[in-house]
Amino acid sequence: MTNRQVILAELPTDRLEVGHFRLQDVPDPVAGPGQVLVATRYLSIDAANRAWMQGATYTSALEGGQVMAGGTIGEVVESDVAGFTAGDLVEGAWGWQTRAAVDARQLHRLTPRPGPLSHQLSLYGTTALTAYFGLLEVTRPQPGETLVVSAAAGAVGNVVCQLGKIAGCRVVAIAGGPAKCAWLTDELGVDAAVDHRDGGFRKALRAACPDGIDVYFDNVGGDILGAALFGMNLHGRISCCGVVSQYDTGSPAPGPRGVPGLLVTKRLTMRGFIVMDFYDGEPARKVEAQNELAAWVDAGKLRPVEDVMEGIDAAPHALVDLLAGGNVGKRMVHVAG
Amino acid sequence: MTNRQVILAELPTDRLEVGHFRLQDVPDPVAGPGQVLVATRYLSIDAANRAWMQGATYTSALEGGQVMAGGTIGEVVESDVAGFTAGDLVEGAWGWQTRAAVDARQLHRLTPRPGPLSHQLSLYGTTALTAYFGLLEVTRPQPGETLVVSAAAGAVGNVVCQLGKIAGCRVVAIAGGPAKCAWLTDELGVDAAVDHRDGGFRKALRAACPDGIDVYFDNVGGDILGAALFGMNLHGRISCCGVVSQYDTGSPAPGPRGVPGLLVTKRLTMRGFIVMDFYDGEPARKVEAQNELAAWVDAGKLRPVEDVMEGIDAAPHALVDLLAGGNVGKRMVHVAG
Repeated sequence: MTNRQVILAELPTDRLEVGHFRLQDVPDPVAGPGQVLVATRYLSIDAANRAWMQGATYTSALEGGQVMAGGTIGEVVESDVAGFTAGDLVEGAWGWQTRAAVDARQLHRLTPRPGPLSHQLSLYGTTALTAYFGLLEVTRPQPGETLVVSAAAGAVGNVVCQLGKIAGCRVVAIAGGPAKCAWLTDELGVDAAVDHRDGGFRKALRAACPDGIDVYFDNVGGDILGAALFGMNLHGRISCCGVVSQYDTGSPAPGPRGVPGLLVTKRLTMRGFIVMDFYDGEPARKVEAQNELAAWVDAGKLRPVEDVMEGIDAAPHALVDLLAGGNVGKRMVHVAG
Repeated sequence: MTNRQVILAELPTDRLEVGHFRLQDVPDPVAGPGQVLVATRYLSIDAANRAWMQGATYTSALEGGQVMAGGTIGEVVESDVAGFTAGDLVEGAWGWQTRAAVDARQLHRLTPRPGPLSHQLSLYGTTALTAYFGLLEVTRPQPGETLVVSAAAGAVGNVVCQLGKIAGCRVVAIAGGPAKCAWLTDELGVDAAVDHRDGGFRKALRAACPDGIDVYFDNVGGDILGAALFGMNLHGRISCCGVVSQYDTGSPAPGPRGVPGLLVTKRLTMRGFIVMDFYDGEPARKVEAQNELAAWVDAGKLRPVEDVMEGIDAAPHALVDLLAGGNVGKRMVHVAG
């Protein structure tokens, strides 16, 4: 066996391109003490992958020449470590490679769920949990409230939209382009969708929210956050989940006009979060959330939206294209199995 | 008797100047049904007076040609309304005039307190209550935490600094100019003071907060908010009280870089508030807060800081000078009595 790796050959100074990566084949890794040999089944492709190239955030900054970092799920191939046996399905962050020797402490066994393995990423993984805690805990949406979601067709956004409907909100989705907007209203079932690439975006957002905005779930920052701020109702809540508009650039834009002025006059709360904060040291909370998501799946109220590319060689394109808004739902790369 | 009024003759398009106001004497007002005739004792001079000229916020927008709006305390001269008798001390917002006929519903009787009447504005009025609720309720400061306060020598800021010390925080004050900074450390007793007009401001703020910033009480917005954001610790809280840096201008600046990016990576909460939200419909909460403030005054832990100008004709200058940072403590105009 060999291990195929995707190397981040050099850090981008502006937009990320496929040429920033290279492929290499190296000998099969050997598990050291406390390590487990795993075979990758899926890579999770996330906007956060690009954010890590901008410097240290909640994970260490990436450097050129390394195996590209990223969330992964796979299968244990060999293990001398108690608690892990060949054939176990595990999640971790061993990056863009087909095989890896991973410290057992950095692996989590997946709770078996009905349905294909990919659902572990689309319905029960970090993105779905981000939607769950970032919407339900951070903003506590109430029936009848208007919830606006940006990057609504994305991995987190589509789950936020679905959870918003479950919570009884009027859900207004923001996405890029008419095709995504049509999909959001016709297939996902949101109440309205607004195209932020359209020149009339601000006016269309106002029209889609005749009673104003009570909760805004922000995946993007920048001008879209600015537009939402102006539409917020008194005592509105903004969940700050990500800043996709600012990841794929060397020169981040200034913050939205209206911060902090509109926060004061409208008495708004903006809260940033990282999903792990809600269950680190409290793993039962994570399982509890996953069980609630599973119950909604069983009840037909929540469905997976997946965007799968085939083969590890596709990973660089999968990320570059995601940053350009090419995905609908949870993007992942199917590696094997 | 005549009534001397200060008229906002025209709205400023950029910086406010004394020339935007004019004085006029009109006949003594006559109380209509449900109204009380009051004589003004003090005008409260606040940065918010300028904000109201920018458009509707939580109060109606000001228009040129009106009596200048503003908080007031005074004495009942004549009343046929139950609950108000000549000689009663009342607070309200009848604006910059020496006499007024005011709807009784828009008056509140002052709870008698020891000390001069001006303490009703400096220690128990809206500014002190803003400090009280905006610090203690919005951010819940803990002993040993680092609290940074901007416009720290101002009416709200000086009380926030004092309440921060009472809460057991390390208090770092931000103010404009070396004189205010010296006063803050030497007289008010904060742990450190940083001059935002100094070229080395950002570095000095970092040096004054060796353990980072847990709580930031923001009176100013703009670049100072931007600097504080970069120094915040994980899970820090920002109380958004005002945006003084953006009131006295026709072209508000963009928001701080780092919104919302730093909110996400540092898991920050920013919350705007208006003090009335904490006690409107619940007047007992206001009295409770005032009683706690009074107990700290009695215990020698909280003291009034007042900046009084004499005579209603001084009101325009009092506001223009306040917007330029000319005040230390609660600015008011003593009108009579």
